[in-house]
Amino acid sequence: MGGGLVVLHGKSIISSLPLKPDHSLCTPSEVSPFFPSSPKMSTRFPTINPKSLHYLFTILSICLHLTPLINSRTIRTVNSPSHLSDDSSITYLWPLPSEFTSGNETLAVDPDLSISLSGNGANSVIVREAFARYKTLIFKHVGGSKFGGTSNSDYDVGKVTVIVHSDDEELQLGVDESYTLLVGKNNGLSIIGEVAIEANTVYGALRGLETFSQLCGFDYGTKTVQIYKAPWFIKDKPRFEFRGLLLDTSRHYYPIDIIKQIIESMSYAKLNVLHWHIIDEQSFPLEVPAYPKLWKGAYTKWERYTVEDASEIVNFAKMRGINVMAEIDVPGHAESWGTGYPDLWPSSSCREPLDVSKNFTFEVLSGILQDMRDIFPFELFHLGGDEVNTDCWKYTPSVKQWLQERNMTEKDAYQYFVIKAQEIAISKNWTPVNWEETFNTFAEKLNPKTVVHNWLGPGVCPKAVAQGFKCIYSNQGVWYLDHLDVTWDGFYDAEPLEGITDSVKQKLVIGGEVCMWSETADPSNVQQTIWPRAAAAAERLWTSKEAAPTSNTSATALTRLHYFRCLLTRRGVQASPVTNMYARNPPYGPGSCYDQ
Amino acid sequence: MGGGLVVLHGKSIISSLPLKPDHSLCTPSEVSPFFPSSPKMSTRFPTINPKSLHYLFTILSICLHLTPLINSRTIRTVNSPSHLSDDSSITYLWPLPSEFTSGNETLAVDPDLSISLSGNGANSVIVREAFARYKTLIFKHVGGSKFGGTSNSDYDVGKVTVIVHSDDEELQLGVDESYTLLVGKNNGLSIIGEVAIEANTVYGALRGLETFSQLCGFDYGTKTVQIYKAPWFIKDKPRFEFRGLLLDTSRHYYPIDIIKQIIESMSYAKLNVLHWHIIDEQSFPLEVPAYPKLWKGAYTKWERYTVEDASEIVNFAKMRGINVMAEIDVPGHAESWGTGYPDLWPSSSCREPLDVSKNFTFEVLSGILQDMRDIFPFELFHLGGDEVNTDCWKYTPSVKQWLQERNMTEKDAYQYFVIKAQEIAISKNWTPVNWEETFNTFAEKLNPKTVVHNWLGPGVCPKAVAQGFKCIYSNQGVWYLDHLDVTWDGFYDAEPLEGITDSVKQKLVIGGEVCMWSETADPSNVQQTIWPRAAAAAERLWTSKEAAPTSNTSATALTRLHYFRCLLTRRGVQASPVTNMYARNPPYGPGSCYDQ
Repeated sequence: MGGGLVVLHGKSIISSLPLKPDHSLCTPSEVSPFFPSSPKMSTRFPTINPKSLHYLFTILSICLHLTPLINSRTIRTVNSPSHLSDDSSITYLWPLPSEFTSGNETLAVDPDLSISLSGNGANSVIVREAFARYKTLIFKHVGGSKFGGTSNSDYDVGKVTVIVHSDDEELQLGVDESYTLLVGKNNGLSIIGEVAIEANTVYGALRGLETFSQLCGFDYGTKTVQIYKAPWFIKDKPRFEFRGLLLDTSRHYYPIDIIKQIIESMSYAKLNVLHWHIIDEQSFPLEVPAYPKLWKGAYTKWERYTVEDASEIVNFAKMRGINVMAEIDVPGHAESWGTGYPDLWPSSSCREPLDVSKNFTFEVLSGILQDMRDIFPFELFHLGGDEVNTDCWKYTPSVKQWLQERNMTEKDAYQYFVIKAQEIAISKNWTPVNWEETFNTFAEKLNPKTVVHNWLGPGVCPKAVAQGFKCIYSNQGVWYLDHLDVTWDGFYDAEPLEGITDSVKQKLVIGGEVCMWSETADPSNVQQTIWPRAAAAAERLWTSKEAAPTSNTSATALTRLHYFRCLLTRRGVQASPVTNMYARNPPYGPGSCYDQ
Repeated sequence: MGGGLVVLHGKSIISSLPLKPDHSLCTPSEVSPFFPSSPKMSTRFPTINPKSLHYLFTILSICLHLTPLINSRTIRTVNSPSHLSDDSSITYLWPLPSEFTSGNETLAVDPDLSISLSGNGANSVIVREAFARYKTLIFKHVGGSKFGGTSNSDYDVGKVTVIVHSDDEELQLGVDESYTLLVGKNNGLSIIGEVAIEANTVYGALRGLETFSQLCGFDYGTKTVQIYKAPWFIKDKPRFEFRGLLLDTSRHYYPIDIIKQIIESMSYAKLNVLHWHIIDEQSFPLEVPAYPKLWKGAYTKWERYTVEDASEIVNFAKMRGINVMAEIDVPGHAESWGTGYPDLWPSSSCREPLDVSKNFTFEVLSGILQDMRDIFPFELFHLGGDEVNTDCWKYTPSVKQWLQERNMTEKDAYQYFVIKAQEIAISKNWTPVNWEETFNTFAEKLNPKTVVHNWLGPGVCPKAVAQGFKCIYSNQGVWYLDHLDVTWDGFYDAEPLEGITDSVKQKLVIGGEVCMWSETADPSNVQQTIWPRAAAAAERLWTSKEAAPTSNTSATALTRLHYFRCLLTRRGVQASPVTNMYARNPPYGPGSCYDQ
């Protein structure tokens, strides 16, 4: 045996890591708790314990000063699919992990892959079900093994060891999604052995499983699932805690199955917030038990979500580490409320904004928020507040009188409405999110907890964080999916922290969100409008600034995005050609998925 | 008790059938074998036996002269979704059964719905798995029962009785897909009780389950699955034995999951043949063990189907009563063959048609057909034969010499190739299908078994059947899905038997097929290009001429098609708006699924 790390861990994993000149800093005493009990090892070393990987990884990353190798072997530029097909060892990850190294071994993965789950989260149903899903994704192709036999010993990888340190499965903003993933050959020497994922929470483990699944590729020659460029050492965590996708179910209704398809595909790109723009002026699909006539505002009796449907969606999302942030967009996008309760309209000819002058309006608002509180555990709740045209308030006698009695302008009343809605939401233990118009119009009146949601253009988050507000970046010029002329690189090159240099202020930008407004999107085309462009934003939101390609992205990111788009289609997702000049256009002609 | 049928079957089912004046033809002696043993019945009646429904239905249909009520209560014209939402008892079926009656009762269906499978097919895995799938489709919405309790007695329907008379599960052209479906309340009097499906084969049972699933709708008011307009008596069978969809996996590759999605959705419309146009000039994705270099013609190493993949697709389709008709399109659409075996090209500059002058060409063809014989059990095999431009044959010295030695023109050589391919296919126990050019050019030379596949325009099937050939109708002007300007009613109004009046000749038209050529379709948009227009053709192919609406279809069919499109989206299928003037256009603006 050699000295240092090679001694510690055998040759399977660590020996191929790119040792720095200073690796001698790692003395045996620093890492001895992690030595495996092996006949070839001194018996003084204890057996592996659930926490060992955690410390091992920490020390490794300190000792090795791991840096990503993003522009070398692993991430290549290719000119054509035929070039791709000549290299049997290409592996593409999307979004790119923050830190990783790889080697040159090829491992065959056993179709009977098993999971060994340990740590305080050892009983997690979330992780076990995720493993089952990923196993299905990884082993899509049935049949043949080149070995002919079925013995586990024919394969290099037969087990995924997952260590989850916490048994707390609450999913909230800022939940720890970090993970470490090691993939190596089990040669009986390594303490790591095969595949190991270590995470503080189950949600970190989910992210690790996704990454692992992307390392696995079906090799048509041997008809086995293989992992190229092993051993892999990946240390990863999200750049932003809020990585969202808005879905608008008012302009068009999306059946539960379609919403689940969207959520499932979000998890492939490590997005973690579904911003559910449930209700708008066109339709009110959600059941509100306190005001049972509200969903009379649905398009039809079939285009509705029961409380149980909504809860099921929230649970389905949670199982994939995705929060659901609900929105009711008041007072400007709420005409459909009045279908069931016409009193919410100032008059039959003034149906929007909601009637600011009636207590009933706020009673209904409170009732909705109370009922939604039971459905949506996420701490953020979106109160909208955008595009409020108050013109017809002043032409409605009752509202006009109410304003005069209070010596208020319509603008004052808009502010009054938003602030009152915030108070109600906060009283129900919610943190309010509002579209940027509220900030642009009366920033000083907003509750300091407010999360400002940018959309109109650049430069809003810098102003918001300067005043101490948190901010979500959704600049419509680059991150609105219904802007069909924004190409993948428009999404990719966007920068949520643009214009913010103070690192303290930068932390107030909790993330960003791509928005799928549905005026011209419906179940027939929503996935092809979302993907692959949402994935471009997802990498911007996940991958650390240092690791993410920033220049020459057509060489460093485009090929990977092609690959990810094709991975989506292999998983049954209707992702559009990457290089469309206009989103969701059909492919221009025959050709490879990896080329279009 | 009253006399006649009401005496026989209690009041639950039969009493609401539209009795004809001649119902007295049914005497008790005719139907006595089917009397249930019931305390309220004479004890001389035997207990129900598995075959009783079969005879009962036969006699019922004779006695009652059942006719469809397609333009009365059940099929309505509505002007808007809001109209729809006012009627809680609308039920739409697509494709329309050939004969049915309905009543005015509403039944609640137990979420714990069970199946009782009997007859010689009682052990069918195909039926049991289908029932499980349909149960998932029917009970998409979790939760609440208006009754609060979970006792089965709270529901009207708790069991589906399926009787399959044959245990032969071979799926071939002309397999019996007929079924009878009765849905009524179980009140302890009826021998039918709840839901009964009777079919001669498992495939008829599958069609019955699909129809049953369309009768079941989730009622958002009670939060239960309900069946309106019960009791239902449906007697149904396909008009044509061949109801196909062509999928072209050469111009773009479709991953297995996408193909499965397509097959699954075909079953919803009762289509029963996937015409798999596997290979064309652009790519050769299929593994051929005898000639392992052939799939080097795939776009990339990832855009391939293994033998096991193909078999899995065939099996997946069979489980849904769908045959897979494979095609290799020779000699004109086969350039990709030469990527692995350049000898198949006449020269490097003449890569198509395949080299007619070499034995090797036919050896490879034979090897492909032999290997495919193990994958595709369907008796029909498509040999293509269309669009053969032989120009470059005559400029290739070796081919030119070969032609001269045999005193053959290029046209002769085209015929020689097609006939030789037919002989090879027939020798492997296949019935050859060829595109119409072969018939148009040398009809008299074609093997009499040949099925002529129309595509160029109208009037071909009349000529083909006049000469004794079988024919498949795919007139590109109405049934090519890549013709995006053909609207739903263009598909709907097409008539495979147009121009054929002789009933003997009509029988030679085995059916029709809609074609999804993939020059500009890929996984991102294929389902939205197929649906809902393929459904329009599916009703033309399934529903008897007498039962299918032929006039004023925007009143008799359009509303149902809207409903079916929305049913597809509820099942997760990306079906486009029905009234698009141009297929797969996005919806023009916000609105209800039932309106667009």
